[in-house]
Amino acid sequence: MRIALDVMGGDHGPAPVVAGALQALNDNPNIILTIVGDRAQIEPLLQNLPGEISTRLSIHHASQVLTMDDHPLLGLRKKPDCSILRTWQLLAEHKVEGIVSPGNTGAVVAAGLRLKKFLKYVRRPGIATVMPTLKGPCVMIDVGANAAPKATHLFQYGVMGAIYAKKICNKEAPTIGLMNIGSESAKGHDLAKETYELFKASHLADRFVGNIEGRDIHRGAADVVVCDGFVGNVILKVCEGLFEFVLKMTAQSLDQALTVEKMQGLGAIKALSEKYDYASVGGAPLLGVDGICIICHGSSKERAIKNALQLAAKEIDAGLNQHIVKELEADPALALAAANETDD
Amino acid sequence: MRIALDVMGGDHGPAPVVAGALQALNDNPNIILTIVGDRAQIEPLLQNLPGEISTRLSIHHASQVLTMDDHPLLGLRKKPDCSILRTWQLLAEHKVEGIVSPGNTGAVVAAGLRLKKFLKYVRRPGIATVMPTLKGPCVMIDVGANAAPKATHLFQYGVMGAIYAKKICNKEAPTIGLMNIGSESAKGHDLAKETYELFKASHLADRFVGNIEGRDIHRGAADVVVCDGFVGNVILKVCEGLFEFVLKMTAQSLDQALTVEKMQGLGAIKALSEKYDYASVGGAPLLGVDGICIICHGSSKERAIKNALQLAAKEIDAGLNQHIVKELEADPALALAAANETDD
Repeated sequence: MRIALDVMGGDHGPAPVVAGALQALNDNPNIILTIVGDRAQIEPLLQNLPGEISTRLSIHHASQVLTMDDHPLLGLRKKPDCSILRTWQLLAEHKVEGIVSPGNTGAVVAAGLRLKKFLKYVRRPGIATVMPTLKGPCVMIDVGANAAPKATHLFQYGVMGAIYAKKICNKEAPTIGLMNIGSESAKGHDLAKETYELFKASHLADRFVGNIEGRDIHRGAADVVVCDGFVGNVILKVCEGLFEFVLKMTAQSLDQALTVEKMQGLGAIKALSEKYDYASVGGAPLLGVDGICIICHGSSKERAIKNALQLAAKEIDAGLNQHIVKELEADPALALAAANETDD
Repeated sequence: MRIALDVMGGDHGPAPVVAGALQALNDNPNIILTIVGDRAQIEPLLQNLPGEISTRLSIHHASQVLTMDDHPLLGLRKKPDCSILRTWQLLAEHKVEGIVSPGNTGAVVAAGLRLKKFLKYVRRPGIATVMPTLKGPCVMIDVGANAAPKATHLFQYGVMGAIYAKKICNKEAPTIGLMNIGSESAKGHDLAKETYELFKASHLADRFVGNIEGRDIHRGAADVVVCDGFVGNVILKVCEGLFEFVLKMTAQSLDQALTVEKMQGLGAIKALSEKYDYASVGGAPLLGVDGICIICHGSSKERAIKNALQLAAKEIDAGLNQHIVKELEADPALALAAANETDD
């Protein structure tokens, strides 16, 4: 499969991103990769490659870089030759089946919104992420693409998240929960109440577990957690900060409590910290795009980029998007309503 | 000081709540307490009290109980003699200076909204909670009283949270951060942008650190974190669930990694779990009420109730509300705008 990788927008420049790309090419012989960015900076990183790998690798030049400090929309307007836009264009022109970027998340989403290369019925894609829970992985969507969604968007996030949970996380009949501030149907703001009713009236009603609360995520109350992009983004980052906080407190406590086995105890904490490192595990899929799009953390290094490319390959292999469209069509009236939703 | 305690609405019935009340009366000789609830259930719990304590204790009978399963508004309408309403009425009639309830949070807030006993300029009170961070305690407000606030409400939460941080948490000049999904001023939904501008134009501008993200809370980026009640409630409960998850994973890892010091290692985790137990530390103040109001977790037992009563006493002693009104008046135009805000 053909994948394009933006190597310019991350926090650490192109070197670690290219290194991750080479690892992915080495591990997965089916990946044919287009590296997008400044040719002069990329070429020196591609010296002395094994011949087999170099035949699956090409550079697509982009002269500009949109940084984390750029305003997404203004940045895209000012920098038409930036690597993020060039990468998206390869997807829009069907030159690749998937794209991966560690760039400015807002700009990656905005570039997609500008090109409007979305799946049938979808007007607003959502970012999914996989959270660990006591009962295995859980897909949370949206975590930042759409800060002020409508109920139809949230319903579609549930549909797309469930397909993702099934095809990528191997959950047979994933359950879906709606993030809210109480479990009763009348809880929360108007958006939550309206979304609740859409799920209840849909073909997913039997897998909809209703409203769930913040504490239910890590207890594994649902395989898919649906939330608006503002709340989802806050949750994701709160988890990152609290995880760091708890492990620091734990390490301090163990440092005092243990003597002869201090090394083993602190080693166990370090291993946990690496296992659940929110920033480096890989990328988050932007679901609803006509093609595969994976957004990585800006601080992504080799391992995260390699994992993100492998995830893109897995999504392409699984035919994720065909399944999503089919599932959206299972509620025809709702699909049409979402497709005809006007922006305001 | 005179405090009223609703002993009926908690998950475990009146016994642990009354036990916590007796502890608080024993620890703090300045508390004069009115216990609100079913006299027949309360009297047997008050046998053989030391004479000194019994002179500071009285029962205010309420024949009905609003449970966690009751809809807040409908429940209050159907049960006019419930302990939550009776407790609020004692505050409204100035028979007590503070109230404490472990009952249905929505109903406690709704009862207050019905009686409208709020501070000058305040139309919508907010629930504050204290979170642990790497740099000491941080006040987060609102965590669930107002799921769809206006920008003026959020600004007032910042003012009230800062006074709370100063008078109760001993922070000299508390900094204020606005919960958002990025640090730049243009980030987030309209409510966040509008609130950002209110802080920037206020007398608190120099202590306003701007937008903060989820991961910044536990890193201690601000002494006061302002958010809408939906987001705040989700954050609070996500923390509860993730904290539980991380400590379980840690205990499992240590169980495998340690041999001779297993007991010490697991003991340290248990101690942390108790230290940061979100459900039992005490109560959360509902700020903006004309009087002191502390809402406890429904599962509160002796210790939490005792702590909540002590907190109410501390807030009364500190003259918290006078300071809040004075601080609101430091931005007269904004205070008037908030006071004249219409509901929609």
